[in-house]
Amino acid sequence: MISINENFLKLQAGYLFPEIARRVNLYSSENSDAAKSLIRCGIGDVTEPLPLTAREALKAGVDELGSAATFRGYGPEQGYDFLREAIADHAYAGVDVNADEVFVSDGSKCDTSNILDIFGHDNKIGITDPVYPVYVDTNVMAGHTGEADESGSYAGLHYLECNKDNGFVPSIPDEALDIVYLCYPNNPTGAVATREQLEAWVAYALKHKAILLYDAAYEAFIQDDSVPHSIYEIEGARDCAIEFRSFSKNGGFTGVRCAYSIVPKNLTATTSKGEEVTLHSLWQRRQSTKFNGVSYPVQKAAAALFTPEGKAEIGALIANYMENAQLLSDACKSAGLTVYGGENAPYVWIACPEDLDSWGAFDLFLEKAQVVVTPGAGFGQGGEGYFRISAFNSRSNVEEVCKRITNLFN
Amino acid sequence: MISINENFLKLQAGYLFPEIARRVNLYSSENSDAAKSLIRCGIGDVTEPLPLTAREALKAGVDELGSAATFRGYGPEQGYDFLREAIADHAYAGVDVNADEVFVSDGSKCDTSNILDIFGHDNKIGITDPVYPVYVDTNVMAGHTGEADESGSYAGLHYLECNKDNGFVPSIPDEALDIVYLCYPNNPTGAVATREQLEAWVAYALKHKAILLYDAAYEAFIQDDSVPHSIYEIEGARDCAIEFRSFSKNGGFTGVRCAYSIVPKNLTATTSKGEEVTLHSLWQRRQSTKFNGVSYPVQKAAAALFTPEGKAEIGALIANYMENAQLLSDACKSAGLTVYGGENAPYVWIACPEDLDSWGAFDLFLEKAQVVVTPGAGFGQGGEGYFRISAFNSRSNVEEVCKRITNLFN
Repeated sequence: MISINENFLKLQAGYLFPEIARRVNLYSSENSDAAKSLIRCGIGDVTEPLPLTAREALKAGVDELGSAATFRGYGPEQGYDFLREAIADHAYAGVDVNADEVFVSDGSKCDTSNILDIFGHDNKIGITDPVYPVYVDTNVMAGHTGEADESGSYAGLHYLECNKDNGFVPSIPDEALDIVYLCYPNNPTGAVATREQLEAWVAYALKHKAILLYDAAYEAFIQDDSVPHSIYEIEGARDCAIEFRSFSKNGGFTGVRCAYSIVPKNLTATTSKGEEVTLHSLWQRRQSTKFNGVSYPVQKAAAALFTPEGKAEIGALIANYMENAQLLSDACKSAGLTVYGGENAPYVWIACPEDLDSWGAFDLFLEKAQVVVTPGAGFGQGGEGYFRISAFNSRSNVEEVCKRITNLFN
Repeated sequence: MISINENFLKLQAGYLFPEIARRVNLYSSENSDAAKSLIRCGIGDVTEPLPLTAREALKAGVDELGSAATFRGYGPEQGYDFLREAIADHAYAGVDVNADEVFVSDGSKCDTSNILDIFGHDNKIGITDPVYPVYVDTNVMAGHTGEADESGSYAGLHYLECNKDNGFVPSIPDEALDIVYLCYPNNPTGAVATREQLEAWVAYALKHKAILLYDAAYEAFIQDDSVPHSIYEIEGARDCAIEFRSFSKNGGFTGVRCAYSIVPKNLTATTSKGEEVTLHSLWQRRQSTKFNGVSYPVQKAAAALFTPEGKAEIGALIANYMENAQLLSDACKSAGLTVYGGENAPYVWIACPEDLDSWGAFDLFLEKAQVVVTPGAGFGQGGEGYFRISAFNSRSNVEEVCKRITNLFN
C-alpha cells in the first residue's frame, strides 16, 4: 500500500498568496461593483513590459530553432556557456565568481527549494522571521520540522527575529546553526544588510562550518552604494555561501522564467566518514539528474539583458519601480503611518494602524480602499503588526493607491 | 557543521549520457580526423526544426509581453487554463481526463523526479530493468536504496526483468510493490505494452493499493491502433496511476521545455492515521510551493501544437522519425543483427553481436564506424547484451549510419 509524505500534512492551510487570492475572490463575489476598482499590490509581480532587447533575442532564438542547421535540442542542464559567462562577467563584475560556478535555472523559487536535496536531514535550519514562506514550507515538506503551533511557527526551525530594533537584519545567534537563509534586499521587509552585518554572518558561518543560503533576487534595486549586491563581496563567503539570483524582478522575467544559483567550487562539506565533498559536484549532479535546462530562447533573452541596451532598459525599469516605492512610502508617511523599506527594495513595509493586526490591515485596505496589500503575518509571527505594499505596479495604479491611502486615513 | 545528503555518494560514476560524452570526447581527442565524421545516435534528442505553428505562437506570446496591456507576469503554477484545456480536449480526447487534473511543467524528467516529493520513504519501489536511469537515480538520491552492487543494481529497489521472452514488458510480480514505474512506448527498448498487459498492471495496482507512474513521453510514436496511448484507457487506472507526457519528442520541444503530468482527482492514499488524502492536493501543493510555472510564450507554443496545423506538423515529424527507425531497423537486420523496437517508438533496440557486451558494441560502433550508439548496460543490468540506436536524426545521417552498419558487418 502506497504511503505518502505525511510532512505535507503539517503545512498550514495555505501558502500566503493562495490565501490572499481566496479572500480577494470572496470579497469580489460579494461586492462585485466595488471590486471593479480593485488594485492588487499583494504579490511581488512585475507589471511593466518585457524589455525590447529581451524580446528580440527571444524571437531570434525561436527563429534559430526553425532551421535544422541552427536547431538546438537538449542544452546543458547547467545552462549554456554564453549565459553562464555573461552572468559571471556582468552580474559579478569585480567579484570572484566563475562561469562554471553559475547554474542557470527556471526560477529562484525552484532553486531555493531544490537546494535542500543536496543537504542532510539533520541540519539545524535558521530562518528569519518574517520570511519568504517558501523557505519554511520546503523544510516542512522535507521533514525538517515538527508541527506548527498556533502562531504558525514550526517546531525544529530556528527563527531569527527581525524587527524594527535590529533593522530587520537578525542578530548573530548564540547557538550553532548549520543552514541559514538570508535574503537581502529583503522580501518582505525591504530592509538591506550592511557590509558589516554580512561580514558578521560570514564569520559566523565559517566558525560553525555552516552554509548561508543567500537570496539576492532583489539586488538590482539597491540604491545605496555602500550596500553589497552579492554575498561574495564579503571575504570568506566563497567558503560558506550559495547565492540565488533571478531575472524575474530586474528584467521583468516573472512570466518568462530564468534565474541562477552560484555554488563556488571551493565550497565543501565533510561527510560522516570524514571525506570532503564539494557542494558544486552535488548540485551539478542534482541538476543533471532532475532538471533539463532552461528554454533555449529564454536563455538568449536573459543574456541580452547584459548588453548595453539591455542594461539601459533594466535601469529604466528599476528607476520606475523605485519611484513607485517612493510615492507609496511618502503617501503612507503623510497618512501618519510608520514606514520601513522601500529605499533599496521594491517593497514598502508598514506598521499596522493602531488596534489592527496584519490581516486586519489587509481587510481594511481590501474593504475600505479596494487595495490588496500583503499581511505581514503571512510571512511569519515576526511579520505580525506590519503589512507590505509592493511597488510593482503601473504608475497610474500607484498614484491611485496613494490617493486612496490618503483618503483612508484622513 | 553542515551535513550533506550522503545518498548522493551511492550514485554510480556517471549518469549514462555524461559517460557516453566522456568516451566520445576521449576518442575525438585521440582521433581528430576520424572524429570529424562522427554521427551521434546516442541521446534521444530530436533534430528537426521546431514546427512553424509553435514558433509563431511563441513569438506572438513574446509580443504580448511587450505591451503593458497584454503583459503577463507570474502565471498559475499548474499552467494556464488555455493549455490545460487543450491538453484535456486533444491529448485525451475520448479519455476521462479533466483540465484541472493536468499539471503543466518544464519537463518529464523533472516531473518523474519531483513526484517522489509527495510519497513516503518506506514504499517498495518497482523499476523495470532496463530502465530510463533517472527513475533509479532519483530514488537513490531520496534515500530509497542501499548501495549498488558490482553490476550497478541497488539494494532495496525491486527490479522487474524485461527481456526478449516477455517482450520487454515485465511480468506481474508475486510480491506487493507500492510504486511501479512503467514507460511505454519504452525507452530504451522501443517496446510497447498491450492493452491486456496494462490491464494486468492496473489490476495489480488496485489489488495492492499501489501507484503506477506511467511515463508516456513517446505515445505519439505508436503506429499500432490496438496499443493504448494512455494508461487511462484502462478501466480503473484513474484510481491507481499518474501519467507523464511531454512535448519534447512529438513537438520537438527538447530545447523549448514543456511537459505535463496527469493526477486524477479521485486518486487517493491513506495516511498512517487512516485518513484519505488525494494525491492531486499533494502534487498541487508541491508544485505551488517549489515551482513557478512554465514560460508563458512556451505555453502558447505548446497549445498551438493542438491546432489542425500543429497536428499536421507533428504528424509529419513523427512519420519522418518513424521512417528513420524503419531504415535503421532494416539495415541492422540485413547486417544479421537481431532487432527489437522501432515499430511504435523512435528507438531501435539491437542484440549485441556475438562476443561483445554492450559497452563493447558501443566502442565498436564508435571506433570502427564513428557512430555513437547507447550501450544497453547504461540502462541497467537487464540492458546488457543490447544497444540502442535513436531514430532522432536527419535523414542523411540515418542513411549514412545505415551504410556504415552494412560495411561494419560485411
